[in-house]
Amino acid sequence: MNESLLRPGERLDDLLINKLKIIQADAEFRFSLDAVLAAHFATIRKGAAAADLGAGTGVIGLLLSALGARKVVGVEINAKMAEMAGRSVKLNNLDDRIEIVNADLRNLKEVLPAGQYDLVVSNPPYRPVGQGLINPYDGLASARHEINATLADVVRSAKYLLKYRGRFAMVHLPERMAEILSVMSSASLEPKRLRLVYPAVSKKPNMLLVEGVLGAKPGLDVLEPLVVYNADGSYTDEILAYYRS
Amino acid sequence: MNESLLRPGERLDDLLINKLKIIQADAEFRFSLDAVLAAHFATIRKGAAAADLGAGTGVIGLLLSALGARKVVGVEINAKMAEMAGRSVKLNNLDDRIEIVNADLRNLKEVLPAGQYDLVVSNPPYRPVGQGLINPYDGLASARHEINATLADVVRSAKYLLKYRGRFAMVHLPERMAEILSVMSSASLEPKRLRLVYPAVSKKPNMLLVEGVLGAKPGLDVLEPLVVYNADGSYTDEILAYYRS
Repeated sequence: MNESLLRPGERLDDLLINKLKIIQADAEFRFSLDAVLAAHFATIRKGAAAADLGAGTGVIGLLLSALGARKVVGVEINAKMAEMAGRSVKLNNLDDRIEIVNADLRNLKEVLPAGQYDLVVSNPPYRPVGQGLINPYDGLASARHEINATLADVVRSAKYLLKYRGRFAMVHLPERMAEILSVMSSASLEPKRLRLVYPAVSKKPNMLLVEGVLGAKPGLDVLEPLVVYNADGSYTDEILAYYRS
Repeated sequence: MNESLLRPGERLDDLLINKLKIIQADAEFRFSLDAVLAAHFATIRKGAAAADLGAGTGVIGLLLSALGARKVVGVEINAKMAEMAGRSVKLNNLDDRIEIVNADLRNLKEVLPAGQYDLVVSNPPYRPVGQGLINPYDGLASARHEINATLADVVRSAKYLLKYRGRFAMVHLPERMAEILSVMSSASLEPKRLRLVYPAVSKKPNMLLVEGVLGAKPGLDVLEPLVVYNADGSYTDEILAYYRS
């Protein structure tokens, strides 16, 4: 592992799977549980060709690769993040399986072929522009707010990339569930699996995991609750398993 | 309480709230936990004018009245069920507050005024025609399958009845969640509250409770899980509370 790939202000974090490491910078967007859950929620067929829309640190691509994807392309609009994610790939000697592309997911036609992917995963910005204060020059802001891509943009691009019957998995906010399901259905990315993530059994869910299948018939399998914390504040066994696999 | 209102083949069940009784016939559709949950999930402002679409036994109307609604109209297409529900109302001396109308909810314009209700509740048939074997002459079948009214019909009629900012609460199947949320949003009955009902914490949900507000902006409050059974098979405290209020 070549730690000389680390720059000032960056640190090396452990992904706790396949000995993967990831470069993160304190001043930039860092991956959270959301991305880890999205990667584990996605249906990853062995040998799948996968894409990650809004790759950020590259964490989803690294996990998809560890979980069985043969090839992964991560699309990231922020040049600085894309460069850093690329170094994480190199650091793990996964250059032959993961590619990070510095591109705008709204203009994929210029960079990636249509209909060639089995799986698209995304941990997109959650909040529409206009909700909360936003600094448009801030990389963190564009990871949280739909400055560079709306929900509809992400879904449209996923559809562009996917083979017929390919899958699109996303983590998002429960409060936008109605819109998410509508937008996916309208794009023929019919929602087939959905799971709500609850901080505790007695709490409201704070994340939504959804997977759609291109061209499928309606009919949603809503899964058992994914509970993150035990009553004593420790991670539940299911969450711990994601860090032990 | 006038038990002479009971006919052969019928029995008197206790609603366990306000000493309410309900007539049910073994051969006909009998109310289930679904209806009880729908009535308790609905936001019932004191003095509200409410309607129940597809009233069946009349259970939702009786509960809404016990929970604070000033007036309730129950619409039931099956003449036999409507007559029986009407006797349940009489039996509880609630004739002045609850009216059962034997009508087709698809043609409400002929029977009920538009835009006069604060709340519409429904426990509609869950399954589209074409799923499973159906005997079209069977009252039970029309309570389970969309023979007389589809999801879109129910939503359209709810919208017709409601005042601006009025609420529509429904119990339905999680597997139809994408369609339910889309149909409600499209009808301006924006989904604002949603709760999934899980038989147990580790099981998939088998019911969905949703409430929309006519003319509201998007933004869904997804509530904590409603768990029906404890690990030992007994009802959870929350469910028991519905039978003790």
